[in-house]
Amino acid sequence: MPDPRFFHRAGPVPVARAAEMVQGTLPAGVDAALTITDVATLEVAASGDAVFLSDKAFQPALAQSKAGFCFATFELAASVPRGCTAITCADPRAAFAQLCAVLYPDTSPAWGAQAVASDAVVGPDVAIAPNAVIGAEAKIGARSKIGPQAVIGPGVVIGDDCVIGANVTITHALVGARVIIHPGVQIGQDGFGFYATPKGPRKIPQLGRVVINDDVEIGANCTIDRGALADTIIGRGCKLDNLVQIGHNVVLGQACIIVSQVGISGSCTIGDGVVIAGQAGLKDHLKIGSGAQIAAQSGLMRDVAPGEKVMGSPAKPIRQYFREVAAVEKLTKKP
Amino acid sequence: MPDPRFFHRAGPVPVARAAEMVQGTLPAGVDAALTITDVATLEVAASGDAVFLSDKAFQPALAQSKAGFCFATFELAASVPRGCTAITCADPRAAFAQLCAVLYPDTSPAWGAQAVASDAVVGPDVAIAPNAVIGAEAKIGARSKIGPQAVIGPGVVIGDDCVIGANVTITHALVGARVIIHPGVQIGQDGFGFYATPKGPRKIPQLGRVVINDDVEIGANCTIDRGALADTIIGRGCKLDNLVQIGHNVVLGQACIIVSQVGISGSCTIGDGVVIAGQAGLKDHLKIGSGAQIAAQSGLMRDVAPGEKVMGSPAKPIRQYFREVAAVEKLTKKP
Amino acid sequence: MPDPRFFHRAGPVPVARAAEMVQGTLPAGVDAALTITDVATLEVAASGDAVFLSDKAFQPALAQSKAGFCFATFELAASVPRGCTAITCADPRAAFAQLCAVLYPDTSPAWGAQAVASDAVVGPDVAIAPNAVIGAEAKIGARSKIGPQAVIGPGVVIGDDCVIGANVTITHALVGARVIIHPGVQIGQDGFGFYATPKGPRKIPQLGRVVINDDVEIGANCTIDRGALADTIIGRGCKLDNLVQIGHNVVLGQACIIVSQVGISGSCTIGDGVVIAGQAGLKDHLKIGSGAQIAAQSGLMRDVAPGEKVMGSPAKPIRQYFREVAAVEKLTKKP
Repeated sequence: MPDPRFFHRAGPVPVARAAEMVQGTLPAGVDAALTITDVATLEVAASGDAVFLSDKAFQPALAQSKAGFCFATFELAASVPRGCTAITCADPRAAFAQLCAVLYPDTSPAWGAQAVASDAVVGPDVAIAPNAVIGAEAKIGARSKIGPQAVIGPGVVIGDDCVIGANVTITHALVGARVIIHPGVQIGQDGFGFYATPKGPRKIPQLGRVVINDDVEIGANCTIDRGALADTIIGRGCKLDNLVQIGHNVVLGQACIIVSQVGISGSCTIGDGVVIAGQAGLKDHLKIGSGAQIAAQSGLMRDVAPGEKVMGSPAKPIRQYFREVAAVEKLTKKP
Repeated sequence: MPDPRFFHRAGPVPVARAAEMVQGTLPAGVDAALTITDVATLEVAASGDAVFLSDKAFQPALAQSKAGFCFATFELAASVPRGCTAITCADPRAAFAQLCAVLYPDTSPAWGAQAVASDAVVGPDVAIAPNAVIGAEAKIGARSKIGPQAVIGPGVVIGDDCVIGANVTITHALVGARVIIHPGVQIGQDGFGFYATPKGPRKIPQLGRVVINDDVEIGANCTIDRGALADTIIGRGCKLDNLVQIGHNVVLGQACIIVSQVGISGSCTIGDGVVIAGQAGLKDHLKIGSGAQIAAQSGLMRDVAPGEKVMGSPAKPIRQYFREVAAVEKLTKKP
Repeated sequence: MPDPRFFHRAGPVPVARAAEMVQGTLPAGVDAALTITDVATLEVAASGDAVFLSDKAFQPALAQSKAGFCFATFELAASVPRGCTAITCADPRAAFAQLCAVLYPDTSPAWGAQAVASDAVVGPDVAIAPNAVIGAEAKIGARSKIGPQAVIGPGVVIGDDCVIGANVTITHALVGARVIIHPGVQIGQDGFGFYATPKGPRKIPQLGRVVINDDVEIGANCTIDRGALADTIIGRGCKLDNLVQIGHNVVLGQACIIVSQVGISGSCTIGDGVVIAGQAGLKDHLKIGSGAQIAAQSGLMRDVAPGEKVMGSPAKPIRQYFREVAAVEKLTKKP
C-alpha cells in the first residue's frame, strides 16, 4: 500500500521467513508457498498484505479487513479471522516494523545527478529559482514558484499557483493548489516512531505520505512528518504560523489556525475551524472537535469536544482554568 | 509607502472601484476622478494613500494623519477628518487588506536566472560561499561572509562585517553591520495575518520589512516575520538564541537577550536590555518595559513595567509566583 | 586544545599583553618571556595553556590542572597553584573570552570556491545529491548519503552508512556511523555565550565541537550548538524528534528519547535512557540521572535523580504534581 511514487518495495517475503525473523509461530499446516507481498493498514489491506493487532480495540477493524497475514500476540491470535494467517509473536508492532524494514529497506529519497530531473513534469509558467532541486518524476503545477535552494523530492506533486519558499524540503508528499510554504519548512521526513529493544530504541519505517490540501499556508521552519503507514493530512485552508510541529498521522480539518510553536503529536485528529494558540502542545492520539479553541501554552492530555474552549497545562475548560488561577492567587492573600 | 525595493505596486485604484470591491459606500458627491495610489500607516500617509480605522483608539492618530482615504465602520466614519475621503464598510481591516492585495498582487521575491544577480552590489573582500543565491539589486557590505546555500533576496541590504550562515533566507530586510546570523534562520517572510471570511481565513498582504540593527546575533533556525505595513525591528546589540519566533511588527529595543524557543507575538514592543528566558511566550500587542526580566516558560498576557521580573503562565511578579507555588504545595501536606 | 580541524589559532600571546588587555595584574617578577599559546579546560590544559577560575567549586580541578596560566579574581588568585601564573582580574570569565578572541579571531567556517572541496575525503559508494556543499578536508564514510543543499563544513567527519537530509548544515562536528539527520537540522553553530559589558552583551568565542555517536537520529529543524570549549555530546542511540534545541556543552547519555520542541540549556548532563517529553525545558547545568522520565511541558529548575519521574513547571515528582492539580481543582468546588 505504500505509495510506489515514494517507496520502492523489495521482493515478497515467504511467511515462514517472516515468522522466523520475529521469533513468531505459524498455525499448524500453513502453506509453505505463501508469501507476504506488502504491508497495509487494516482498512485497505488485500490478501497479500500483512497487518498487525496489538490492541483489542482494533479487533472489529481486523474482522472487516481483507488482510492475508496478521502479527498478533498469543492472547489476540484467536481473534484473527479465517482466511488471515496469524503470526503469533511477543510484540506485533515490533514484528510489523521488522517486516516493513525488509520490504522497504531504504525509504530515503534517491537523488539523480541533475538538479532538476529530466523527467520531472513542470507545468506552464512555473518559475524555478536558482539552485532549486527537483527529483525524478516530481510534478509542479502551472504558475507555481519554487524558491532558491528548495528541494522537491522524487514523485512529489505540487499543485497550481503554489509558492514554495527558499530552503524548503518536500518529500513523500502531495500538495494541492494555491498552497504557500514559507522558507525553511521541512515536509515529509520520517515520523518519530521507535520500538524498544534491549539494545535501545529501534526505528519503525515510516511508509506514509503528507497530503496538503488546497489554500493551505505553512509558516517558516515548520516541520510536518509523513505518516507511519496512513497519511498525515492538512485540511483545506489551514493556516500554520512559524515553527509548528505536526507529527505523523495527524489529521487537520479545514481552515484551522495553528499559531507559532504549537506541537501536535502523532495521530491527533483535529476537526474543522479549530484554533490552537501559540506554544500549545497536544499529546498523541487526541481528538479535537470542530470549532474548539485551545489557548496559548495549553497542554492537552485529553480529547476536546466540538466548540469547547480550553486552557492550562493540563488543559481544562477555560472558565475553570481562570477560576483556579484566581483561587490560587487568593491563597496567598492575607485574610 | 511599502519599500519599492521589495514591493512592486500596480496602478492606482479609482476610489469608486475600491468602495465597490469592499461593498462600501462613499460620501455623497465624491469626485469620480479620485484615485488611491498607495496604502500607508496613519503616521506616514500622504494624500494619495489609504488607511483604515477599526478602533476608536486610533482616532487621534487619524486626526493628525495626512491620509487621503480611510476605510471606516459606519460608527467611526464621522470621525474621519475633512479632506480625507471615508469609505464606509463593515470590516475596515478586511477592506484595507483587499485593497493591499489589488495594489500589491505579488509580494513574493522574484528570482532571476543567475545565482548571484549581475546587478547585486557586493562590497570589497566579501566571501560568497558556493551555491549562495543573491537577488537583484541586493547589497552586501564590505568583508561580510555569505554561507553556502544562503539566500539573500532582491533589494536586501546587508551591512559590513556580517556573517550570514548556511541555509539562511533573508528577504524584505535591511541588516546592519557586524550582524551574525546562524544557519537555518528565516527572515522577512510574511507575518501571520488573516481576516475571517465565510469561506475561511483570508490572507492580509504583508507589506513591511525587517530591520536588523548593528551588532545583533540571531541563533540557528530562528524565524523573524516582516511587518504587515510598518517594520519588524531588532534593536542594536540584541542576542537571540536558537528557534526563537519573532512575529510581524515586533519592536525589540537594544541589547535584549532572547533565549531559545521564545515566541514573541505580533506588534509587541520590547524595551532595552530586556531578558526573556527560554520557551516564554508573549501574546500580541504587549509592551515590555526596559530592563524587565521574564522567566523561562512564562506566558505573558499583560504588559510588563520597566525593571519588573515576572514568571508563570499566566505571568505574575516573580515573588508572587513563588508564593503561589509554595501555597499550592502546602495544600497537599497533611496538617 | 580547540580542534585544529575546525579552529585556526593565531600566534602566541605574551602574558604581559594578556594581562594588560584584561586590565589584570601579574605576580611580581613574572618572566617577561612567557607566552600563552592556547586556551583549554582545566582537565586537559598543558603548560602553555590558559584557564580561568571564577568559582571556588573549581579549585580542586585547578589544583590538579597542568595549566600554565590562570585568570582569577583577587579573592581566588591565592589558590592558583605553584607553577601556574595567576592573572588577577575583575572578571576571569570575560578575560578568558577576550583571550579566546585574540587566539581565535575567526571561528566561522572558511569555504572554498568548489561546492565539493577537492581535498574532501569521500568514501566508497557515497551518494552526494545535487548542490550539496562539502568543505575542505571533510570526510564522508562509506555508503553515506548527503542530501541536496546539505552543507558539510571543513574538517567535519561523517561516519559510514549515515543519511544526511536536505538543507542540513553541519560544522565543527564529528558524526558516528548509521546516524540519520533529517532535513533542516543545524549542527555545530556557536553556543549562546555572552558576558556583560557596559556596552551590552559581548560574545564568548565558542571553541568546542559537537560529537554525535553511532545510531543517533535527529529530527527535522533541530539545533545543536557546539561546545564553548569542551564538546556537546549526543550519546549512542539517542533519538531526537523535530525542533529540539540542544545548548552548548550538553551531554546526552545513550539511547535517550527527546520529543519534539524540547529545549535543553547549556551544560546539562543527561544520563542513559532518559525520556524527555514534548516542549519540556531544562535550565542550564542540570544533571538528569539515567532512566529519568520528564513529562511534557515540564520546566526543570533542579537536578533529577536516576529513575525519577517529574512533571510540571517548576517540575516536581509526578505524583506530587497530580496531587497539586487535584488540590487546586478542589479549591474551586463548593463544599
